[in-house]
Amino acid sequence: MHTTQDAPATFTYTPVGTIHSPFKDIAGMPIQPNGARGTRGTIGIHAPYREGLRDLDGFERVILIYALHKCVDHCLTVTPFLDTTPRGVFATRSPKRPNAIGLSVVRLLAVDLAGGTLTIEDVDVLDGTPLLDLKPYVPAFDAYPGSCCGWLESVAKNAETTRSDDRFR
Amino acid sequence: MHTTQDAPATFTYTPVGTIHSPFKDIAGMPIQPNGARGTRGTIGIHAPYREGLRDLDGFERVILIYALHKCVDHCLTVTPFLDTTPRGVFATRSPKRPNAIGLSVVRLLAVDLAGGTLTIEDVDVLDGTPLLDLKPYVPAFDAYPGSCCGWLESVAKNAETTRSDDRFR
Repeated sequence: MHTTQDAPATFTYTPVGTIHSPFKDIAGMPIQPNGARGTRGTIGIHAPYREGLRDLDGFERVILIYALHKCVDHCLTVTPFLDTTPRGVFATRSPKRPNAIGLSVVRLLAVDLAGGTLTIEDVDVLDGTPLLDLKPYVPAFDAYPGSCCGWLESVAKNAETTRSDDRFR
Repeated sequence: MHTTQDAPATFTYTPVGTIHSPFKDIAGMPIQPNGARGTRGTIGIHAPYREGLRDLDGFERVILIYALHKCVDHCLTVTPFLDTTPRGVFATRSPKRPNAIGLSVVRLLAVDLAGGTLTIEDVDVLDGTPLLDLKPYVPAFDAYPGSCCGWLESVAKNAETTRSDDRFR
């Protein structure tokens, strides 16, 4: 048993690795992995955590959870790249969130256990982004292809071609 | 432009809300949302963040990113609930991760903007869990129904009936 009062007021995490990508600047990036098809990157996992990569080969995709480390403040209402209407930030994937945590589902191409390097594809992440966690993508847990998506329903596909600008710098 | 050296060594987050569920103890819980079908819960969003919930209605599912606040240490190799073979922790969804961050895709039933309460279903989360972030689930970004999933390929479906035990306490 526990109560809500058990929880500490803040949670602190140390990155387990660094994501490397061709995107050196926040502006001009793909805004989601479906706009970054074929874009390769790597992840360098820090030495103390490399043993945790065992058995990851065989997974076609992985979920990256990372610190949006260039975001220094947040907005509760944002105008997303895909829309002209201001939206509540939790109804968007905008990086200017109260906790600037990013999530991307990317393709896993190769695992170098000894070197602690993952080769990934469909990477929509800024070069140098600190990786907080890495999870295997499991369709039975994570895939809901028919799920309705509110205001994004008609525009999500536009993420394939939309590029970022300076608004979330 | 930036370099990897820009990134701070740690990242600290303050929860934006609390997840409430029928699960008061780590043992005996569903281990994934597909084992928690129909289980209802609520999320209380703290007052300063409630405005960020606008436009969330209309989304069928949301992604919860939360602190696995009962996990006090981690293992690089774990024997998952769904297997008898030890696996690298990053190839599992075990909570005993270097950064104990959880992720669940749950169904969104109702949004009470004024009260800051979300009603959710398929909730596989411990009662009192601190919510770090909430994102809309967007199939174009998040759904890869045919994605191969390594050692989990043949056993992921068993998560519908498998319950947790004490091993990750």
